[in-house]
Amino acid sequence: MSDFRERVLQANLELVRAGLVLLTFGNASAADRDAGVLAIKPSGVPYDELTPASMVLVDLETGDVVEGDHRPSSDTPTHLVLYRQLDGVGGIVHTHSTYATAWAQAGRPIPCLGTTHADHFHGDVPITRGLAGDELGDSYEAATGDVIVEALRGVDPLAVPAALVASHGPFAWGADVERAVENAIALEAVAETAYRTVALEPAIERIGSGLLDRHFLRKHGPAAYYGQP
Amino acid sequence: MSDFRERVLQANLELVRAGLVLLTFGNASAADRDAGVLAIKPSGVPYDELTPASMVLVDLETGDVVEGDHRPSSDTPTHLVLYRQLDGVGGIVHTHSTYATAWAQAGRPIPCLGTTHADHFHGDVPITRGLAGDELGDSYEAATGDVIVEALRGVDPLAVPAALVASHGPFAWGADVERAVENAIALEAVAETAYRTVALEPAIERIGSGLLDRHFLRKHGPAAYYGQP
Amino acid sequence: MSDFRERVLQANLELVRAGLVLLTFGNASAADRDAGVLAIKPSGVPYDELTPASMVLVDLETGDVVEGDHRPSSDTPTHLVLYRQLDGVGGIVHTHSTYATAWAQAGRPIPCLGTTHADHFHGDVPITRGLAGDELGDSYEAATGDVIVEALRGVDPLAVPAALVASHGPFAWGADVERAVENAIALEAVAETAYRTVALEPAIERIGSGLLDRHFLRKHGPAAYYGQP
Amino acid sequence: MSDFRERVLQANLELVRAGLVLLTFGNASAADRDAGVLAIKPSGVPYDELTPASMVLVDLETGDVVEGDHRPSSDTPTHLVLYRQLDGVGGIVHTHSTYATAWAQAGRPIPCLGTTHADHFHGDVPITRGLAGDELGDSYEAATGDVIVEALRGVDPLAVPAALVASHGPFAWGADVERAVENAIALEAVAETAYRTVALEPAIERIGSGLLDRHFLRKHGPAAYYGQP
Repeated sequence: MSDFRERVLQANLELVRAGLVLLTFGNASAADRDAGVLAIKPSGVPYDELTPASMVLVDLETGDVVEGDHRPSSDTPTHLVLYRQLDGVGGIVHTHSTYATAWAQAGRPIPCLGTTHADHFHGDVPITRGLAGDELGDSYEAATGDVIVEALRGVDPLAVPAALVASHGPFAWGADVERAVENAIALEAVAETAYRTVALEPAIERIGSGLLDRHFLRKHGPAAYYGQP
Repeated sequence: MSDFRERVLQANLELVRAGLVLLTFGNASAADRDAGVLAIKPSGVPYDELTPASMVLVDLETGDVVEGDHRPSSDTPTHLVLYRQLDGVGGIVHTHSTYATAWAQAGRPIPCLGTTHADHFHGDVPITRGLAGDELGDSYEAATGDVIVEALRGVDPLAVPAALVASHGPFAWGADVERAVENAIALEAVAETAYRTVALEPAIERIGSGLLDRHFLRKHGPAAYYGQP
Repeated sequence: MSDFRERVLQANLELVRAGLVLLTFGNASAADRDAGVLAIKPSGVPYDELTPASMVLVDLETGDVVEGDHRPSSDTPTHLVLYRQLDGVGGIVHTHSTYATAWAQAGRPIPCLGTTHADHFHGDVPITRGLAGDELGDSYEAATGDVIVEALRGVDPLAVPAALVASHGPFAWGADVERAVENAIALEAVAETAYRTVALEPAIERIGSGLLDRHFLRKHGPAAYYGQP
Repeated sequence: MSDFRERVLQANLELVRAGLVLLTFGNASAADRDAGVLAIKPSGVPYDELTPASMVLVDLETGDVVEGDHRPSSDTPTHLVLYRQLDGVGGIVHTHSTYATAWAQAGRPIPCLGTTHADHFHGDVPITRGLAGDELGDSYEAATGDVIVEALRGVDPLAVPAALVASHGPFAWGADVERAVENAIALEAVAETAYRTVALEPAIERIGSGLLDRHFLRKHGPAAYYGQP
């Protein structure tokens, strides 16, 4: 488990280095599905005080802390819902990165306007509906996971590995925590470029499915030819 | 007092590291209410020449310099008014950070458009009315404090720990100077994200009070569950 | 060839240092026309693992790998077309830099709005038409080169050393790879300044040909007087 | 003269550190009016190769190179006109910094929208008319100086120590080269904040003369009380 915690620590620190988090905003987790646990950043601890040992192990089924001296991130119930509901997801990242959060606060999905987007996300990055009433009660964080799952209905979560929570910010994920971090970085780049594109051309249309497929499939799936064999 | 001055020095330097100040813009102070003094940056001294000894001690009641070889920040009278009028405030930060200043120059409060805002400010960040006539005379800096206090009427200053001075820029504060710096950093992040949100969606509405309370109260007050116990 | 590969490596690393590429986006190549080869970054290898030996040598005529243990950049067919069709080009850079990509996604050429632009590009930076149908098939990357060449018809490629691929991003080039990198850096600066200019003044017109010529010709051609003799 | 050249070198390097110049854009000079010379950056030499000895000494009256192995900046004739025509100016800086250049390309002066502006510039930062016809000939750089002087008519150059050249970019100056650099940094900050202010509120009006005078005069002139005595 020490290597597992080290990877989760490095993923959290990479969010700082990539400029995606300020102060103690944001958190990254990884799941070890065989062991039935996730490891996640402790809540509200400054990034420069984090060590592998401060990553908290939480039971994927019960949500109980299994190991660790700290309280886990307050967003842990959201991570638990996503691991339970999204097949193949091994790592999750939550940030308040500027441009993705601006789209989330504007209540708009990020439209696929170019190949940088298509290289990472096979279509728009969806946005959840707003939470209301009971969903803002004690199960608020779990309800946040539920609306993300709802927004992904009919979508392969590894083909569109991110979503925006309305009025809140982005979650990104991947087969492992390193790819979740990479997707969070790509998401912010895509969100910024889309922001600037619509500033130049408010009526711009999404790219066609031919270009979308060409770029997504050259990096993902059996016919991929990007990267090393 | 040497530890006290060291903390004020570090708070001033943190503003530079966080990218909130340029040249000699900006200043941070802390109050020691038992000793009846505040410590503040000297006026117009380059940040890399500052030492703990160059922080100036000023009497909270009379405004006289109690200790120090330098002239205190020219904004000291503003700080004095805020310490006298805002209960529980132990540290104050003034910057000309880009996005908060843009809202101030535009004459608009920063609307609460998402949870990053709600995590730190329990509602809009208010803006003062413009100063005029006599208020631009010899007591200009004290009058600046007065209009901030006026803009906060009916608001708990620790629940909304910042305000914009119209045509000027932001002041932020907190129970101590470290939290004042943190609030100044959060304010600039919130100001930038709000700026980009209204660029995407000019007619966007504020978040509802349910979501506002959920986020503010999970970090502040007796029912807070963010961070470590 | 080891010095040649070292130069291509440094060009690729300079793109990272200049903030033009994120993750494994982007690639730089150089051609040695006497030897009949280009050297290019391998596909999808992290920048901090690159060495001179990992640069891949590719035959300029056949497109076959001549030397190297890695698969070359998936954009290699685009580079090949450009070297074959654009006289005098010795280095090519492809990035997804934010502002140039925003113009590309908006489907608009970058208009020449000032002297920074005129110092580097003797007129608008052109944009390709979109690719469609067969062009999105197996020869997609070569077709990308073809539409760039089409967009440059009638233009001296060393006088306008960059183009935008619609819905994709910029390619820049030069007489050697160092100048290609410099043009990619200048292109992003010009793209950002043009973006902000049209935000301030949407109806702004291009500069006149007198000012365009004055600036371009003081840096390029027989009458140049910028730089050292 | 070696200390003089060292100061000019440091001023040029400070422009890079402050993020105001890219590649070999930009230049700083200082005048020694008693010796009748200015020292300026050589043309087109990379910043990391500059030494005190590479600063070029030029006769203020004749414009001839007095000392130095390099060709001086191609903008030297502009600097010469400004030193001859603007009383009290001891240092000049020219950059293509992003936001100031965007205002210049948009053909608009930078309006005084807040106290950050008023702290440094006693009113709008003026913009020149465009150059045309003969002015684009061999005396182009001197003509650039002439239109700056024309745009400053009736203004104390040390009270408004900067101007925008239309379709080109900013020049800033001061009593010495260190203050010229400081004014160039302040100008870019003011240009960015004004850009964002008009994005939020296109119809925003300039601040009143009472607030303008209060801020400018607390830092400048006989009644200044900012900084150390």
